[in-house]
Amino acid sequence: MSENLKNASNNATEKKYAVGIDLGGTAIKGGLVDNRGAVLYSASVPTEREKGAKAVAKNIAKLVKTILEKAKMTKDDVVGIGIGSPGTIDSKTGTVVYTNNLNWKNFPLADEVSALTGIRVKVANDANAAALGEYKFGAGKGAEDVVMLTLGTGVGGGVVIGGKLFEGYASAGAELGHMVIDRGGEQCTCGLRGCFETYASATALIRETKKAMLSNPQTKLWEVGLDNVCGKTPFDYMDVDESAKKVVNEYIDALTIGIINIVNIFRPQKVILGGGVCEQKKVLLPPVRKAVSERAYGGKKAPKCEVVVAKFKNRAGQIGAAALWLE
Amino acid sequence: MSENLKNASNNATEKKYAVGIDLGGTAIKGGLVDNRGAVLYSASVPTEREKGAKAVAKNIAKLVKTILEKAKMTKDDVVGIGIGSPGTIDSKTGTVVYTNNLNWKNFPLADEVSALTGIRVKVANDANAAALGEYKFGAGKGAEDVVMLTLGTGVGGGVVIGGKLFEGYASAGAELGHMVIDRGGEQCTCGLRGCFETYASATALIRETKKAMLSNPQTKLWEVGLDNVCGKTPFDYMDVDESAKKVVNEYIDALTIGIINIVNIFRPQKVILGGGVCEQKKVLLPPVRKAVSERAYGGKKAPKCEVVVAKFKNRAGQIGAAALWLE
Repeated sequence: MSENLKNASNNATEKKYAVGIDLGGTAIKGGLVDNRGAVLYSASVPTEREKGAKAVAKNIAKLVKTILEKAKMTKDDVVGIGIGSPGTIDSKTGTVVYTNNLNWKNFPLADEVSALTGIRVKVANDANAAALGEYKFGAGKGAEDVVMLTLGTGVGGGVVIGGKLFEGYASAGAELGHMVIDRGGEQCTCGLRGCFETYASATALIRETKKAMLSNPQTKLWEVGLDNVCGKTPFDYMDVDESAKKVVNEYIDALTIGIINIVNIFRPQKVILGGGVCEQKKVLLPPVRKAVSERAYGGKKAPKCEVVVAKFKNRAGQIGAAALWLE
Repeated sequence: MSENLKNASNNATEKKYAVGIDLGGTAIKGGLVDNRGAVLYSASVPTEREKGAKAVAKNIAKLVKTILEKAKMTKDDVVGIGIGSPGTIDSKTGTVVYTNNLNWKNFPLADEVSALTGIRVKVANDANAAALGEYKFGAGKGAEDVVMLTLGTGVGGGVVIGGKLFEGYASAGAELGHMVIDRGGEQCTCGLRGCFETYASATALIRETKKAMLSNPQTKLWEVGLDNVCGKTPFDYMDVDESAKKVVNEYIDALTIGIINIVNIFRPQKVILGGGVCEQKKVLLPPVRKAVSERAYGGKKAPKCEVVVAKFKNRAGQIGAAALWLE
């Protein structure tokens, strides 16, 4: 029994490391992550997607090598490489089924990188990986059921159910950004109209801010200039300009409806918001929290769902990818 | 080894029975169900909800007794009683957390019925139970991930993930009828606007048919009379009347969007449609299937999701409830 206790104690303190890779369209970011979710060493390289999938796999392998060298480690010191990739991933085989972003189809990314590095590789969709990272090490800690929404250029979704990543059949689910909330509304890149993404992304904020400017030559938003509008712009002007305030209010309304849908569908203990738009958490969180608690199904009688902001910012991708290997 | 084989063979042919209870607002229906999903004996009693929760539990116990007597069985011959109840259920404890339909709050239904019958009791939300029944014995057989939509007075949702009922935290999820698909649209009983239920239920068909009649005194729909309109009416007239056809087309459009949302969110292998509206499957299925295969995320490149009609009709509730105990 004392032997068992000793082993348990050893296990509890034993450090484990994984390399987490955040595969983006422009750059590949990577980090050595420990089993507490800390990034110890990190580096990045250009993706060079125009050179094709195999070249990108080589760039990933090169980046892994750089990171291990920085950490003075060998391949035997890490439990594995995790890759968060855009697109639809068959996470069982580590194949990128398709991604518009990189223009790949059925590319066996895990096998390629594993062959180049001699290290085991797991691949997951980037939004799913980020959700797993927040669940294990970040804002989702302590909850069993967590949904993460990444509010960036698009809206990514990641779902953890009962402590496990939920990806749908052949890992093709959890496309929460492509849930229609406004039938017949704004055209989405996916072909549908009125997707959550077309209202709750930074792209939506930019589109609506520009629309507001073009329809109102008097708005103070013109100080910024049409070409300089970014997702932050309407928030910067909301206290001094009615048009800007309207853009923000419309954004909050759509975000709220999307989150309420997610609560009614998944009833997670936590909804975690990530992505650049979350910089505006002081403006966004109070009305969203109020609406979720009052208007989700069952209202205040239903089990509470907290809406929180992600812990990890730029490193969410690396930490989430590494979390595919770490507990 | 031959002994093992013998045991295996015994197990394979061993019959198990459970009592499945479908608890409705007006009547309680029950059946003795075997482990192939067949209903062997069934009966029903009035719910008498006006007498309160304890009286309803007594009626359930009485019904169980009647069914066992019919089957010439004792309580030891069944593995358990399953109850499909409206409302939000804590399925871990068998408590009805709340149900508007019966006006109960935190009623320990499993404990009450178990005390009265001496049989173990499990309780689940009725739509969830129906999904489980179809997954185990009906139209979902062979799939691991199944979503069932019951298109009746409302729209109920039930989700099976990896062979297990997914109910959300404290069993308060899977409220798929209360997913907003048309922000700012029709008022829903839940307080939101534009819920899937407000467009894809029989109630929606009736509302829209009446609207069409009131706005067009020439429509043939007047033959039916305003008070006799039911969910079937617009389908009966769609070939001879433009107003009726428009109602049906609008219904199909909303149903399609809701199902595409469910595919994008869950990516199940099968979406199973149940409820009275499914009588119109010849009209509904072809356009819905086409739209799902073409317009869900990833289109034809994504893993296929079949849209099928439920196997069990009036007995779905009993079979689903019994399925809480049977494999």
